[in-house]
Amino acid sequence: MKLGTIGAVTGWLLVFLSVALLLPIGFSLYYHDGNAWVFIVSSLSGASLGGLLAWSCLPGREIGHREGFAIVGLAWLAAAALGALPYYLSGAIPSYLDAYFEAMSGFTTTGSTILERVEILGPGLLFWRALTHWLGGMGIIVLSIAILPVLGIGGMQLFQAEMPGPTKDRLAPRIQDTARILWGVYVLYTLGEVILLMLSGMDFFDAICHSFATLATGGFSTRTASVGGFGSPLIDYIIVIFMILAGMNFSLHHRLFKGDFKAVIKNEELKFYLGMGTGATLLIMVVNYLSHTYGSLGESLRFSSFQVWSILTTTGFGTADFDKWSPVCRFALVTLMFIGGMAGSTGGGIKQVRILLFWKFTRMQIRKLIHPRAVEAIKLDGRRVPAEVMQSILGYLSLYLVVFVVATLIVTGQGVDILTGSTAVIATLNNIGPGLAGVGATQNFAGIPALSKVVLILCMVAGRLELYTLAVLVVPEYWKGTDLPRWRWQGRRG
Amino acid sequence: MKLGTIGAVTGWLLVFLSVALLLPIGFSLYYHDGNAWVFIVSSLSGASLGGLLAWSCLPGREIGHREGFAIVGLAWLAAAALGALPYYLSGAIPSYLDAYFEAMSGFTTTGSTILERVEILGPGLLFWRALTHWLGGMGIIVLSIAILPVLGIGGMQLFQAEMPGPTKDRLAPRIQDTARILWGVYVLYTLGEVILLMLSGMDFFDAICHSFATLATGGFSTRTASVGGFGSPLIDYIIVIFMILAGMNFSLHHRLFKGDFKAVIKNEELKFYLGMGTGATLLIMVVNYLSHTYGSLGESLRFSSFQVWSILTTTGFGTADFDKWSPVCRFALVTLMFIGGMAGSTGGGIKQVRILLFWKFTRMQIRKLIHPRAVEAIKLDGRRVPAEVMQSILGYLSLYLVVFVVATLIVTGQGVDILTGSTAVIATLNNIGPGLAGVGATQNFAGIPALSKVVLILCMVAGRLELYTLAVLVVPEYWKGTDLPRWRWQGRRG
Repeated sequence: MKLGTIGAVTGWLLVFLSVALLLPIGFSLYYHDGNAWVFIVSSLSGASLGGLLAWSCLPGREIGHREGFAIVGLAWLAAAALGALPYYLSGAIPSYLDAYFEAMSGFTTTGSTILERVEILGPGLLFWRALTHWLGGMGIIVLSIAILPVLGIGGMQLFQAEMPGPTKDRLAPRIQDTARILWGVYVLYTLGEVILLMLSGMDFFDAICHSFATLATGGFSTRTASVGGFGSPLIDYIIVIFMILAGMNFSLHHRLFKGDFKAVIKNEELKFYLGMGTGATLLIMVVNYLSHTYGSLGESLRFSSFQVWSILTTTGFGTADFDKWSPVCRFALVTLMFIGGMAGSTGGGIKQVRILLFWKFTRMQIRKLIHPRAVEAIKLDGRRVPAEVMQSILGYLSLYLVVFVVATLIVTGQGVDILTGSTAVIATLNNIGPGLAGVGATQNFAGIPALSKVVLILCMVAGRLELYTLAVLVVPEYWKGTDLPRWRWQGRRG
Repeated sequence: MKLGTIGAVTGWLLVFLSVALLLPIGFSLYYHDGNAWVFIVSSLSGASLGGLLAWSCLPGREIGHREGFAIVGLAWLAAAALGALPYYLSGAIPSYLDAYFEAMSGFTTTGSTILERVEILGPGLLFWRALTHWLGGMGIIVLSIAILPVLGIGGMQLFQAEMPGPTKDRLAPRIQDTARILWGVYVLYTLGEVILLMLSGMDFFDAICHSFATLATGGFSTRTASVGGFGSPLIDYIIVIFMILAGMNFSLHHRLFKGDFKAVIKNEELKFYLGMGTGATLLIMVVNYLSHTYGSLGESLRFSSFQVWSILTTTGFGTADFDKWSPVCRFALVTLMFIGGMAGSTGGGIKQVRILLFWKFTRMQIRKLIHPRAVEAIKLDGRRVPAEVMQSILGYLSLYLVVFVVATLIVTGQGVDILTGSTAVIATLNNIGPGLAGVGATQNFAGIPALSKVVLILCMVAGRLELYTLAVLVVPEYWKGTDLPRWRWQGRRG
């Protein structure tokens, strides 16, 4: 393993983020929130540290399999370390751990917050918060569609052949092409949402912040009351539509733009995703109406559809306090929390394609009991799912449960009650945002003990990196044959 | 499928139970509880109905694969229908649904009760309650070691070769031998516990009822305060030891008696089971001590070990209200609820061997990411686990989650709160007994709405039959080619 490569890539990432840190300055100056200096200092710190790292580390000629895991894991940890600076320097979040939590929640597009009132941040920091979502979302699309499949992780291996991305066992050449195409779609949708939200009465600042948070399925809002604070059905429905789009596989969007409607319509995962969201919306709409939570079916549809898609796509925006809904609605939402968006979207969770394949696999096992000698293959979109992919997906569920149980044991071990503790883990591991009870839609993560915050931060990264990436890093075998990095001042050797 | 065979076997089962229904009469008469007539009427009803069924149905020459599923499923439903009669006829449980719930809870060795105070039943009915556990436990041992493997279900396929049971694809010839050996062990342990409990100060009635409930990992006690009502550390520890024995694979006990200690000591599932129980006991003991729930480590060990083994083996006896313990203890217990005893024991849950193999499978998936080309086999006790067995086990977890989610949605849909509803499903699906909150250790299932009770009853059966057995019955393909039964009065045709 070449630590030099890892250092160099991380350095460049910090330099890139330092440029991004200059963007909020415009809003800080325009709104006179007095935080412009915070971004300048943060940017300079990031640029000098990152530049030094990038300059001094000698990268290898290509990025191998092993370096890939370390880079992907380290990228998020380093990004949040720099991204936390503005919150901390401004004094808005006095604890660096809390600031790190907020920044990680941004970059992993989780949307959990430690702030009781987000308005205290002021426009500059609120924009930075939204921007961390948007940049994180960009990273995730490339990660899930171009990088993870090469590392052998994630449902997207299935689509590898159709993708404009790389098909060989090394990261690099065609990732840039893939990224350019997908980011084009991402930017286009963001612009579209900004325009529609402004037409519905939002100002530019709110529109861009909410669009960033929607497309990244992040969930940070500029208001403590989240999207509910705007009180506009039109805004609600516009955001629902863009949440649904953000939870879709971005390579499908690419196909849509190329006019390949047939492939999109036939896509099994898409049908499953839309069917599940629609089914859950109908169930919860009816229950909320019958239990008199809302006066009319229309009102019930508005609030039920918003919370369902917000949770299912793991965005985490809120327009209603679903913690006050009846038990079946809350339990349905907790179930949706585990499922999440489609593979190759910015959404978190276990992912639709995995759930779909679990289900097919289970049905096959039942049929096998009736016809023990029948050999049946699991198919997706008419093609056979390779056994290794199926195994990787089955192992994922198992690993998921292990991480969930261990994390919840640590959090509840610090005295957090069961419902708060378990849903805090679910909300971060699936990159959603709010949980139930003490971390419910109208609550925040401020009261969680420090060690538990660290665990939840790791959950955010683990969920975002589809668990395996982080799991690999803790296996001793992975580190075998690791050399110390070669530094530039030692001269090039070998 | 031969419905005649199914009818005949069910008929014989009812006749057998009618004989068992005569046993409580002794206690009823001795203690003058006035319920002797109840057992006579119930026994006569069962014998006449069962006899008629057995006489009139023409069985096929052998019991095939398909009939096996239906018989196994129907046996429990029919047994509970008859077993509920004494509760109902005596007037102790005025609702037949509640009586059916209590009987099913008995036969499936679940131990959940709808009674606020069990003492109102009187000795005769209390003995019957314990006897349903014991008979159910007998059925389960044979089911899991001899019948399910033939149907292709359950972790026990793995041990098939070593078992004295059948190895061919038809139920029948050697099942009787297996049953005789295993029941011998079962009876021996029961007698052993009765004697030890009596030596510790219990009277014969309490000793036999508690021994029945322990060996079956059932959990019905003769007191509302459960084993805690006796307030004796000695009794607590004796029951802990027999719970541990009851949660072990009964074929291991058979080997122990044959002097084959080596095989027992080397058994990986046994090590995993004992390790998990010991680890959980230590964790909860320390937390309970540090949080001042108990004054001394010794006291904490006594109550922690009892609740841990009671939950892990899915017995469900209680000596402490664990709903008052700290969140991490409660969450740890909920986790143990899912795991359960060893395969081939009377315990419920997902079973130790499945959890162990999940874990091995997951580790293998992680190692594969580091060495993508390495081909590795999963081994248990030094032997390769066949791919089909591994798949069946993986599908089991998936099916388990589906059943858990659907059942909890229905229960919470009737207004039961999330923690009560979800743990009620967990407690019945894993055949444990108590859950948390509204169905916690000091509560009961009386307040659960009727439809939810039906769902929980189905959960008990589904959990007991390792899900697949019931799942198969709801697949339309299973019913293809089913003829109407041939009745004796139509004469033998074909």
